[in-house]
Amino acid sequence: MSHCIFCAIIAREAEASLVHEDEHTVAFMDIRPFTPGHLLVVPKRHASGLAQLDPQDGGRIFAVGQKLAAALRDNGAHGAGLPADGPRADGVNLYLADGAVAGQEVFHVHLHVVPRTAGDGFGLRGRPVTARRPDLDYLAGALRRRLGSVQAPG
Amino acid sequence: MSHCIFCAIIAREAEASLVHEDEHTVAFMDIRPFTPGHLLVVPKRHASGLAQLDPQDGGRIFAVGQKLAAALRDNGAHGAGLPADGPRADGVNLYLADGAVAGQEVFHVHLHVVPRTAGDGFGLRGRPVTARRPDLDYLAGALRRRLGSVQAPG
Ligand SMILES: [Zn+2]
Ligand SMILES: [Zn+2]
Repeated sequence: MSHCIFCAIIAREAEASLVHEDEHTVAFMDIRPFTPGHLLVVPKRHASGLAQLDPQDGGRIFAVGQKLAAALRDNGAHGAGLPADGPRADGVNLYLADGAVAGQEVFHVHLHVVPRTAGDGFGLRGRPVTARRPDLDYLAGALRRRLGSVQAPG
Repeated sequence: MSHCIFCAIIAREAEASLVHEDEHTVAFMDIRPFTPGHLLVVPKRHASGLAQLDPQDGGRIFAVGQKLAAALRDNGAHGAGLPADGPRADGVNLYLADGAVAGQEVFHVHLHVVPRTAGDGFGLRGRPVTARRPDLDYLAGALRRRLGSVQAPG
């Protein structure tokens, strides 16, 4: 296998600030954070994209992302005796880029966990449009056929 | 429970262009798509945010998102006999907003599945900075303590 920076982190051959590790996943700080506390969750088993990713590993990285979101939002303000230091978050974004055109830069699947506070400047770029129902029904029909379910769900 | 548009869609009391349904999840077209083919995956069990979401439902919406990403990227160009109509995608973004400050507008957890093509104008807003290792180690330490693992992973 060609060099993969995330596989190197998992093998402890590259530096990282680890936050979580279990049998199937690791989580560490992004070295180019959008906001302070920005984390990445990766499966230990190398998968370049969603098409290569074991669906169980997909569920696992999401579950870790969910736990990290809870840790980010719990800044000790609730009197649970937790230290009030560390990152602050009043909200969290989960983000995953699959494919170069989607902004993927490291071709080992990773889920971004981005802590959010008011005025932090992070968000989505783009302009949503109001779609017409017939267009949506057409797209939904095409996707249902691709999913192999000829009949409309329900 | 106060009115929830996604619960209404699940109950077939509100219109939607459905693409997938199983025991625990539904997926349908976003009525304000960032790009054509933009989908939402939601758990059937109402959960306002990640803190209320059953972790199993979290894994399930991710798994459906992964399948939909595959369907979006398979536009029949591979000669598998699939219809070549419908949305096109050379990549996909998964996105989830947890909390108003993170851009959450409907308070029933939903995973965005956004098909991507070159020049579509969608992406992230914000400016990542190169972080210093001591700062990352400090943040990682605070998060590890919050996660209840006093020891550094590994
Ligand atoms: Zn790798
Ligand atoms: Zn609901």
